[in-house]
Amino acid sequence: MSGTRKVSILGSTGSIGRNTLDIISRQSGSFEVAALASRSDWETIAKQAKLFKPAFVAVFDEKAASRAGDLLKGSGIEVLDGVDGILEAASTDRADVVVSSIVGSAGIMPTFAAVEAGKIVALANKEALVAAGKLITEEAERTGARIIPVDSEHSAVFQALMGQDRAAVRKVILTASGGPFFGMGKDVLSGVTPEMALNHPRWKMGPKVTVDSATMMNKGLEIIEARWIFDIPVEKIEVLIHPQSIVHSMVEYLDGSVLAQMGITDMRIPIAFALSFPDRLDLAFDSLDLAAVGRLDFHKPDQEMFPCLALACEALERGNGIPAVMNAANEIAVESFLAGDLPFTGIPDVVRTVMDDPPDFDDRTLSGILRGDQLARAAARGIIALSKTST
Amino acid sequence: MSGTRKVSILGSTGSIGRNTLDIISRQSGSFEVAALASRSDWETIAKQAKLFKPAFVAVFDEKAASRAGDLLKGSGIEVLDGVDGILEAASTDRADVVVSSIVGSAGIMPTFAAVEAGKIVALANKEALVAAGKLITEEAERTGARIIPVDSEHSAVFQALMGQDRAAVRKVILTASGGPFFGMGKDVLSGVTPEMALNHPRWKMGPKVTVDSATMMNKGLEIIEARWIFDIPVEKIEVLIHPQSIVHSMVEYLDGSVLAQMGITDMRIPIAFALSFPDRLDLAFDSLDLAAVGRLDFHKPDQEMFPCLALACEALERGNGIPAVMNAANEIAVESFLAGDLPFTGIPDVVRTVMDDPPDFDDRTLSGILRGDQLARAAARGIIALSKTST
Repeated sequence: MSGTRKVSILGSTGSIGRNTLDIISRQSGSFEVAALASRSDWETIAKQAKLFKPAFVAVFDEKAASRAGDLLKGSGIEVLDGVDGILEAASTDRADVVVSSIVGSAGIMPTFAAVEAGKIVALANKEALVAAGKLITEEAERTGARIIPVDSEHSAVFQALMGQDRAAVRKVILTASGGPFFGMGKDVLSGVTPEMALNHPRWKMGPKVTVDSATMMNKGLEIIEARWIFDIPVEKIEVLIHPQSIVHSMVEYLDGSVLAQMGITDMRIPIAFALSFPDRLDLAFDSLDLAAVGRLDFHKPDQEMFPCLALACEALERGNGIPAVMNAANEIAVESFLAGDLPFTGIPDVVRTVMDDPPDFDDRTLSGILRGDQLARAAARGIIALSKTST
Repeated sequence: MSGTRKVSILGSTGSIGRNTLDIISRQSGSFEVAALASRSDWETIAKQAKLFKPAFVAVFDEKAASRAGDLLKGSGIEVLDGVDGILEAASTDRADVVVSSIVGSAGIMPTFAAVEAGKIVALANKEALVAAGKLITEEAERTGARIIPVDSEHSAVFQALMGQDRAAVRKVILTASGGPFFGMGKDVLSGVTPEMALNHPRWKMGPKVTVDSATMMNKGLEIIEARWIFDIPVEKIEVLIHPQSIVHSMVEYLDGSVLAQMGITDMRIPIAFALSFPDRLDLAFDSLDLAAVGRLDFHKPDQEMFPCLALACEALERGNGIPAVMNAANEIAVESFLAGDLPFTGIPDVVRTVMDDPPDFDDRTLSGILRGDQLARAAARGIIALSKTST
């Protein structure tokens, strides 16, 4: 890669953020860290800051920010706090590339800010495009911001589209591991505990994404993301279960050719690609050994066992802010499930109920969407509280 | 695709030639047939000419040419004969794209002529690059001719390289079905009849290529071709057995990403791609249905059972015309096997023996290589005749 890229990492203390720093530490000549941002993990971010020497760090929680400030006293590294601090990390002139890896709706505003500032946005946050895909892609067109997906699936599609005839795309095929409950009977789902749901067979990810993977809402969110990143209608997006997670996704062309990107299940590969695009870094990981893997399996997804897939397609077709509503309701439902307040099968039920009577808001502005997000969360909380009372 | 491409087909009456005409007939607005050429099949070429109305046809065999001339009397379609006729079809100003699909060493001179004339060369003939890869690729650089592979494997690699960082290629992985004898014990090979060898599990191809596929010499020739088409050293080329022939080949990059091209096993897909590159035609074939295929398997090749793989790598490493010698000896051995004059396991033995005591010739000119080809054929015939006498 030619030149040094300056990188700001939103969510540096999470799974994607830590992997991003791992790549940067392996390729020190190619990258500089411009800024780091975290919600509240002051201890980790202070350690990271001492190691990678950004100009500043941003910690959303004020108390945590002040503790990080204590640890960084005398280092010359400034500590910002609150929304303003996070937004500064998202739009700072010091960064060329912004890694947007804050999990959940909290990532929407910072992602928009990075796009507004015309950055190369390495996008790991799903919710920004799910809730505000139209706004964000229009803004990127205006500012020249380039969105490079970090999700392994979208990174695969992105790579399978490079240098190809875009007018000849017949289908985008997103692969899904199927999560820990693939192939089990539907009756197993009612007894699923948080521990069971967090035990993902292939990928090491944060808890929210892991539960979304078990309900397949993760794949639903990815369908909506793909629609916006690749400007492709929902009818041309398919999901295919592929338990080994070796084929990360595919693009089928009009001539019958299918281009696929494969690799070992290591998030550092798509992260590195987003950081170095269009070049590739020599990461010195093991080669994918297909003879050792032996076989790759493919199945149609079971729509009845995993209703979240159909919910996501419905949300995309209905538009008018419904994807934001779905996403917010899902986030609360997953939170409640992890807290032991909602059974696993209650997750799609809560989402369905909120989507059936969605809050009223203006989805043409970011503030409108964020208000809709809040209203949908409140509605989901209400439904969950009610269901607890009634049992 | 924009504009109409004028196509000359060398070997129009063979398997690739007929499939090329099938595509052209489905996409009549996109292509015109400039010329057709065949060795001796006057009946078929005359029928094709009446349908596709080229300016001329070329038939190598003089008697056959005269019969084709009788059938085309009054059509306004000229009939040429001999080597000159074939070379005119290869280099005619009337063609933009030359499909080089004459099987065997007979395709070397016409392929060189098409490259010399600066054409887009849709290359199906393997022997041209195997015997004269250096000469042909140097000539293509000089004239600006573009070689687009038609072999499904090389077409896959070509597609997996498009738009990508060429400096970051770690490996080219050619897949092989393994042929009809994959997974059987080595002892089964001694009893293999031409009928058994011609029964390929996946691809419908001509007899020479089908036998080469059974001995895996086909893959050996493809390794040598890949070295020249993609300018990649032999150490970076691997072979992987993949019985379903769905993944047509792959490229692994330094970051661990593997890009693969997949599709149903229909030669019309890579042929069409070579005709329309860089655009893609809407061929309206069935989509690849991976859920219906169910599983894809991968194995390391058995080098001991299929010694032709190692012979090809050895020939590439030795250089100095040895690949041409190997190819010629193999062609005679396959011919003798199909005629019942050589056992299946005799094919690599004959090639080995000729390679161990290769004829002396100048491999820096096309005429030198063609002389080496003739000498190696004579040597192979001598060895086979001797082995018949001794049994």
